[in-house]
Amino acid sequence: MNVSLTGLESFVTLQEIAYWREKSQAALETLLDGSGRGGEMTGWLNPSTADAEISEQYAARLRERSDVVLVCGIGGSYLGAKAVAEMLELEPGRLEFVGNTLSGGYNSRILRSLEGRDFSIVVISKSGTTTEPAVGFRIFEELLRSRYGTDAAKRVVAVTNPGKGALRAICESRGYPMLTIPDDVGGRYSVFTPAGLLPLAAAGASVTALIRGARRSREQNLENAVTYATARRALYASGKQLEVLSVWEPSLRWLGEWYKQLFGESEGKDGIGIFPVSLEMTADLHSMGQYMQDGVRNMFETFLWTQSTAAIAVPATADDFDGFNRIAGLRLDALNRMAFDATMAAHIEGGVPAIKLEIDAMTAETVGEFLMFLMLSCGISGYASGVNPFDQPGVENYKSKLRQLM
Amino acid sequence: MNVSLTGLESFVTLQEIAYWREKSQAALETLLDGSGRGGEMTGWLNPSTADAEISEQYAARLRERSDVVLVCGIGGSYLGAKAVAEMLELEPGRLEFVGNTLSGGYNSRILRSLEGRDFSIVVISKSGTTTEPAVGFRIFEELLRSRYGTDAAKRVVAVTNPGKGALRAICESRGYPMLTIPDDVGGRYSVFTPAGLLPLAAAGASVTALIRGARRSREQNLENAVTYATARRALYASGKQLEVLSVWEPSLRWLGEWYKQLFGESEGKDGIGIFPVSLEMTADLHSMGQYMQDGVRNMFETFLWTQSTAAIAVPATADDFDGFNRIAGLRLDALNRMAFDATMAAHIEGGVPAIKLEIDAMTAETVGEFLMFLMLSCGISGYASGVNPFDQPGVENYKSKLRQLM
Repeated sequence: MNVSLTGLESFVTLQEIAYWREKSQAALETLLDGSGRGGEMTGWLNPSTADAEISEQYAARLRERSDVVLVCGIGGSYLGAKAVAEMLELEPGRLEFVGNTLSGGYNSRILRSLEGRDFSIVVISKSGTTTEPAVGFRIFEELLRSRYGTDAAKRVVAVTNPGKGALRAICESRGYPMLTIPDDVGGRYSVFTPAGLLPLAAAGASVTALIRGARRSREQNLENAVTYATARRALYASGKQLEVLSVWEPSLRWLGEWYKQLFGESEGKDGIGIFPVSLEMTADLHSMGQYMQDGVRNMFETFLWTQSTAAIAVPATADDFDGFNRIAGLRLDALNRMAFDATMAAHIEGGVPAIKLEIDAMTAETVGEFLMFLMLSCGISGYASGVNPFDQPGVENYKSKLRQLM
Repeated sequence: MNVSLTGLESFVTLQEIAYWREKSQAALETLLDGSGRGGEMTGWLNPSTADAEISEQYAARLRERSDVVLVCGIGGSYLGAKAVAEMLELEPGRLEFVGNTLSGGYNSRILRSLEGRDFSIVVISKSGTTTEPAVGFRIFEELLRSRYGTDAAKRVVAVTNPGKGALRAICESRGYPMLTIPDDVGGRYSVFTPAGLLPLAAAGASVTALIRGARRSREQNLENAVTYATARRALYASGKQLEVLSVWEPSLRWLGEWYKQLFGESEGKDGIGIFPVSLEMTADLHSMGQYMQDGVRNMFETFLWTQSTAAIAVPATADDFDGFNRIAGLRLDALNRMAFDATMAAHIEGGVPAIKLEIDAMTAETVGEFLMFLMLSCGISGYASGVNPFDQPGVENYKSKLRQLM
């Protein structure tokens, strides 16, 4: 993969870049030696091949019994699997995500959709007492036990923490097998633990290849991760408060959601932090393009280009009423790249600094590589900005207020 | 519907509210008498029942021939239909949206999905020369004509402008019927023209009820629209640059996308404007909640509550390992409302001013009412901020750059 900063040239000085590169390089060392705040939560630096293998074994059991696997989890216990399933275009409908909403309507629709379809449940929760997945698990486990009776124990796999916890107690009582989210990995960094691997394997992904890509990235992309962190820090220091990640394939829309949690939750604290936004281009160019070009100049943009392997081209027509015969025969991906280049040039001209990331076509291995690159860069950027990138103290306030109301 | 500003009390003074209410009231008058900049683009103030009726007639023809209707359009020619289809939970899979991306992979997947399924096309474009829908139409019209031969003319309906244009020429040549987007309605305000009505009717929505709701709102919600605009203007003037719309049902996720185009494209120009963001709660509380609670205090939040009619409740369990028997029997919607109230209180405490919007359960009529309320308020807020809320001068730059590359 490649990280290019040429789109920053008229916005930050070489001196600013040098300053933040030094900070980011030091932050990388802090990250790798575990000496920073939250250093006890950096287990994700070493994704485990054994986790991939055991996830594939349990996934095979679930797949042979099920038309659909319900993935019950919220936040980091769902966005990683969802994003990667979309990026790899896994079998549609094979996974359904529950336990991530309190909507009665949504849960009713999923219940109805299970009529006539065999299903299993992967339930993912460190504690087992987060409201949404706990309530979701109650709803769908009730259906599962009433439908499958004693066979139910073969249709549930839990992913939870290694020690105590409500979910562990449920599993021990009912005989459900458990896989582990290590204690030293937080939710938003857990895509390479069974929290991400088990659902993805259940949908048919090669999770050993995913881990292979992540482990390779951990060795090869340190410099790229520092470069991306350097650019983000320099831009934030120069007054840019928003980062807009633009992706150029519909299948990357959920990567944007995962990225927002990773960076927003890691950096947005103590009254500071880059506010993360994502756009799916070119669709969103026709909704948010006006603002990007011409609104408040408080943002920078990260353009993410991914190679595509689809060979479809613009058809010719006999009458050419719309005038597009001039590009007949052009591959759509080449046309999409023209739009990418044109948009980046236009936004820079409009006063939006641009970082360019380019990665190969989406495979389990390249996705693993890219997500690890982002996690590394996020840890570096968090330390360089002076926060603990591995805690989330702000989420306690609404939780305690909700407990009071309940 | 109801608009409440009690969540602004510790953030803006009564004097500031009074100042912006007067400005907004004057902006309303400018909007209604058509005397402001872009006043020639306010035809959307009078949604047409005749448009609903003719859309239902053509939709019936498409429905009887098709398993799936491809909706080919981008920006305002797709987001309105997409958002309302989701809000009303219309038949899944009945509509597929194309012409809104240059992704080869996406177009290939749609082509494959049409094997063995009968389809029709609704193509929506004022000019017929916007790249994405023009290319999309070439791809899918080619398949349609090769599959259906002379019957193809019964399977395409175009929505375009009343005068000249490439799409009009295609339709006249091939005998495709045309419905009209009036000249005095821009894309992001076009959901109540055939651009929104025809696809929605094709998916089974009662579009006459949608128009009824919109027309009622145009009479009854002027005061509410002024109130919402007043709050947004007062908050922006006090330094809040981002608006976060939080919706509390997964089916409202695409409303967020429509809302971002409506407000972002109307207000984001001349170097000013509120940057629009949307979150789907409670899912996104577990990703962006940390930032909302504890990051840079440059945002306000609009909490949108919609009643639900689903009667599902939290099940009891015999062993109560997770401790949630204390809320067994509670309806999910009541629990969701507790989360809504808890989050609003927590975010206000964290320094985020909150506007509360409450609307009835989603029906075609209440959706029509709500979208018209938002369009009214957007026009008012745009005029009160001093911009033309009906143009989009910034989108030309990338278009001309793309033309050069092509």
